[in-house]
Amino acid sequence: MKTQLALDRLTIEDAIRLARKTEKYIDLIEVGTSLIKEFGMTSISRLKEAFPDKEIVGDIKTIDNAIYEFDLCFNAGSDIATVMGVSPLPTIEACLNSAAKHGKLAMIDLLNTSPTQRDALLKYKDAIFCDHISKDEQEMSGKKKSIDRVNYDPSLKWAVAGGITVDSIKRMIEPRPHILIVGSAITNAEQPEKVAEAFRKIIG
Amino acid sequence: MKTQLALDRLTIEDAIRLARKTEKYIDLIEVGTSLIKEFGMTSISRLKEAFPDKEIVGDIKTIDNAIYEFDLCFNAGSDIATVMGVSPLPTIEACLNSAAKHGKLAMIDLLNTSPTQRDALLKYKDAIFCDHISKDEQEMSGKKKSIDRVNYDPSLKWAVAGGITVDSIKRMIEPRPHILIVGSAITNAEQPEKVAEAFRKIIG
Repeated sequence: MKTQLALDRLTIEDAIRLARKTEKYIDLIEVGTSLIKEFGMTSISRLKEAFPDKEIVGDIKTIDNAIYEFDLCFNAGSDIATVMGVSPLPTIEACLNSAAKHGKLAMIDLLNTSPTQRDALLKYKDAIFCDHISKDEQEMSGKKKSIDRVNYDPSLKWAVAGGITVDSIKRMIEPRPHILIVGSAITNAEQPEKVAEAFRKIIG
Repeated sequence: MKTQLALDRLTIEDAIRLARKTEKYIDLIEVGTSLIKEFGMTSISRLKEAFPDKEIVGDIKTIDNAIYEFDLCFNAGSDIATVMGVSPLPTIEACLNSAAKHGKLAMIDLLNTSPTQRDALLKYKDAIFCDHISKDEQEMSGKKKSIDRVNYDPSLKWAVAGGITVDSIKRMIEPRPHILIVGSAITNAEQPEKVAEAFRKIIG
């Protein structure tokens, strides 16, 4: 299991500082959607420049205009770029084709997909699937939604995201995901490096 | 009926130049998702600075992290910001609340929403609804999808987007939308001002 540090609601400088503090314990660095929308592609190129040996995930959340957005993201230095599972299928297929062309990967974010949509997506064997409880759902629904892994084919690569803490990962049932996406549990901690280290110890 | 000029896949300078050429004939200026993701909030603030008297639409396509993204968008100078109809409802409600707080508007993009999702969204009477055939669907599906307006309550404000040309607007059935979103028909034209003028003449 790898740890992906999601950097959101930060300046680029603070994002670099946080990644620097925790880099020993993390595998992938995610340039969050909020950084992309606030600062543009500079956010990706600066993080890649600062961490050339880490895999950079550009959380661009494409939902249309796939080729243009994925080209932007990969050309700026992303190794992985995200597309929304709720997009029309031509968008998802264009993202996968773009990733293959660039020799990179696409991550399909399953946020708010219906069971039918999920079933239709599972044929894209080259993608990483991300089971995702959104920030807004965590904060506003009043009830904790749980990650649904019923339909996963074990031959697929998958990630989980959404309010994951050191405690919740301890309770996580098997099979564990390939990638654990952790954001505020690390970025809002007083000592981010200690929390990142705690995740590393648990997930091994 | 108002015309919204959608500016996508352009530098900020070219976006300003195109809007300047056509400003006599357009009502709203949309800072496209591709400009936001490429250049960040600077794209919105520079367009608002160049056109302080036009309504600026920030096509930020929020699907999570609603309050943060809508604050960014309105603080940069947007008068209207977009949220995806396929988002979880807490996200859409947070966007509407943010718009109300800022004294601005939210546009709900109905791209790829199911009939059930559309029905659930129509209760948000303060929103502008955007019926939207995506760029990728236009280019890759091989068949022209048509805008579905069956369920529209005439008391709602709505917009249409997706490959609209001077010819297609002539064929548009009643009732016409409040906002017609036009992108490449104007931005890719050899004489954008002539095409914008042609739209203005047709829609009156």
